[in-house]
Order: sequence, then structure tokens, then C-alpha cells
Amino acid sequence: MHITSERRLDDGVLVREFTLGEIPGTLWTPASAAPAPLILMAHNNGLPKADARLVARARHCAADGYAVATVDAAGCGDRPRSTADEQARADLRRALRAGEPVDEIFESVVGPLVENAVPEWRTTLDALLALPEIGGPVGYSGWLALGIRLAVTEPRIAAAGFFAGGFVPRAQREEARQVTVPLLLLLQWDDEGNPRQRALDLFDAFGTEQKTLHANLGGHTGTPWFEAEDGNRFFGRHLR
Amino acid sequence: MHITSERRLDDGVLVREFTLGEIPGTLWTPASAAPAPLILMAHNNGLPKADARLVARARHCAADGYAVATVDAAGCGDRPRSTADEQARADLRRALRAGEPVDEIFESVVGPLVENAVPEWRTTLDALLALPEIGGPVGYSGWLALGIRLAVTEPRIAAAGFFAGGFVPRAQREEARQVTVPLLLLLQWDDEGNPRQRALDLFDAFGTEQKTLHANLGGHTGTPWFEAEDGNRFFGRHLR
Repeated sequence: MHITSERRLDDGVLVREFTLGEIPGTLWTPASAAPAPLILMAHNNGLPKADARLVARARHCAADGYAVATVDAAGCGDRPRSTADEQARADLRRALRAGEPVDEIFESVVGPLVENAVPEWRTTLDALLALPEIGGPVGYSGWLALGIRLAVTEPRIAAAGFFAGGFVPRAQREEARQVTVPLLLLLQWDDEGNPRQRALDLFDAFGTEQKTLHANLGGHTGTPWFEAEDGNRFFGRHLR
Repeated sequence: MHITSERRLDDGVLVREFTLGEIPGTLWTPASAAPAPLILMAHNNGLPKADARLVARARHCAADGYAVATVDAAGCGDRPRSTADEQARADLRRALRAGEPVDEIFESVVGPLVENAVPEWRTTLDALLALPEIGGPVGYSGWLALGIRLAVTEPRIAAAGFFAGGFVPRAQREEARQVTVPLLLLLQWDDEGNPRQRALDLFDAFGTEQKTLHANLGGHTGTPWFEAEDGNRFFGRHLR
């Protein structure tokens, strides 16, 4: 892990940009010297790690005593995309404009994105847990499809907070029943691009006995800020 | 308002039993001397105010700085029931045992219960707000059908936390869209006696723009304790 820049925020949180081979990442750690529990925070469908909403959540979470890390995994954020990826995304934009069915195109975009992202997140996790300022256990927050895959394949994930507003490939919908860690699923009731019933069906399918759904009125980006606080308390119950 | 007994708990909360005409009630007030916001707490479908789960929630809430009051309104708890009430309840028990449809019988039990309870809760609210140790604003917690009726008819109610696990008469299902105060609806995902879809439809129908649904795995009485804490924080956002 190579630190490329660091700065300290007013609330004492240290922000470090890093690279890990080809993987660019950001790590927020709290002012406290004690090893902090780690939360991996990923944005739905490979949006950039520098997105303002993700950064705001990460800072809030770090100020509350967690180490928070995010990366742009293969094909995510500004990472290069394959010709096939670019073609699938062009198809998606065209279909959305034309009002045509998009499920199969989403499947071809998001399915490989998740498959390729998982090993890079696991590599990142290995590197982060080697840092003295980071303890266990590990939580996961954000991108639903990636989180399902990670929760099923990565035994170090102890709790997961998922945001329902993103396409979930067939493979992850089927894996949902294998998720056995405590989870909190966050749903925007009127998310224009993500049918509510799919999120409710997924909540029903998760295999864990400790699952909570929080739903709020409003569209995709309308999640109220108090849900960030509720998320911290959820992790507080399971990671501390 | 006539105080019939009082005692102080270890955490400083003062518990007073009172009567207001024929209405028996309990009032919990926090140790602090400053006027506290008031929460009216009612048990679904007229269950007794002395029920252990309600008492536990009320104490927790008072220890957190709220004045909490509950009453057994007409026909609720141990209050006398009319011959018609008794007959309807006998019909309900028989139908439940026989596995017959119960919606119409529930309607005949709960509909009048709500109608008769509302004026007694409003009388209680008048008396409570006259006490110097109670300030405004006022929250409501618990019994869904009564809460809908109160939120629609009583302008002093500023926020409402509802528990979905109770029959909601037709009149209140229709009134739901007139509820405009911030609300938190608590749903047990596998509540055997209360179909999940009805609760989701009701959440969808509420007229307020600030509505949040919390759903947890498990049956009617399985609500996790952290929801009591979440409830206090919900009231903290709207009553303080």
C-alpha cells in the first residue's frame, strides 16, 4: 500500500489517498489512537469513490470512531473499461432513452462489474487489516450487489449496511439467502429506477436472522441524513 | 386529575397512577425539573396499560427525558365492556379458533373501541398539558388505529410512532392519507396475525412527506429492543 497524499480534517479525521497496485483508494481514520473497527464503503454500480455523497458518509462515519475505506475497483470510477463494458453502457443509455426494457443490459453491465470488483476489495481488505491503526471486526456499507457477494465469500465481514437503490444481478439475488451476517437494508420508497418490490423481495430472501429494513419517502438521492447516524449505530451494535 | 399513588424509580423517573373521572392512567416523568415534551403511549387494540412491554418502553422513554402517559380508555384494559363488545370478542375468539375470516369481526370490535377511546385520550391530553412539569410539543406512540384517528383530529400531536401489529378499521385506513405529521411505522416482518402487505399499503397511503418504515424479522412480539432507542431518537428530532 502506497500513500500518495494525506491531510487532516478539522474534526481530527485523517484522510489518506493510497494505491494498491492498480487500485486507487481513500482511507479515513479517526483522531483516536486506538485501533478502530473498519468499514468498507462502496458506491452502487461502480460510481466513483470521490462522489460527494459517499465522501460525506465516510467522513461522518470516521468522525464517529470508525476507519473507513473505499476503492475504485476494476471498471469502477475512472478506471479503464473494456470495449465490451463501454458497448454495454452505450446500449444501456440508448435503451433508457428509448424507454426499452433494461434488465438484461443492466445484467451485462453490473454482473461482470461485481465479479471483477470482489477480488480487488479482498486484496484491499488484506492490506488495510495489516495497518496498526485498524482493528477488526469489519463492516460493509453501500453497494448492494457487491456487498452480497462479499458477505457470502469473505468471512471477515461481520455486518452489512446495504443501499437498495442499485441493480442486483441474478447471481447476487440468488446468493442473498446465503447472507447470514446482521444487515440493515436502506430503501428509498419512490426510487424511480429501482422497483420497490424487488427490494422488498430481496429483504425477504436474506438468510440472516438479524435483518432490519429502513424505508423513507422520496427518490433515489433523497435518503435523509439521519440514516447515516442510524447506520453508525447499527455498526456500533455489531462491530464494537 | 387525581393522583392515587406515586413512586420514584432508581433512575429518578417518577411514576404516578392517576384517575381522571372514570379514566385510569399512568404518568412517568423524568428526574429533570425542566418541563418535558409529552409522549402519549397506547397499546394496540385496547390492551391494558399495565402490560409489561408498554411499561418497559414508557420507563425507557421517561429516563431519556420525556414525560410519558398512558390510559385505559373506555372498553380498554380492565374497563367494563358492553354486552355488544363482549359478544363481538367471543365471536372473534370462536372465528380465530375455527380458522374463519375475521376481518369483519375485528372491524366490529376495534372500530367502536377507537371511536370511544379518542375523546378520553383528548381529555387526558388537556389535563396533562395543564401540569407544570409537562411542556409541549406532543408525540404519540403505539396503537396504530387510535394514533391515526388522533393524528387527524388532534392538532397538538406533532409526531407519531406507530406499531403496525394491530387491526386497522376501514375508517382509519381511509384517514391515513390525512396524516401529515412526521411518522415512524414499525413493522414485524412475520407478524402472524397482521398481513405484511396491509402495513406496506398503509405506509404508502400516509399523507405525510416525512415517513419512515422500520421492519425487523420476526413475529408480533419480537421487536428488537434497539427500536425503542430508535423511537426516542425519532421523537428527539421532532419534539425537541
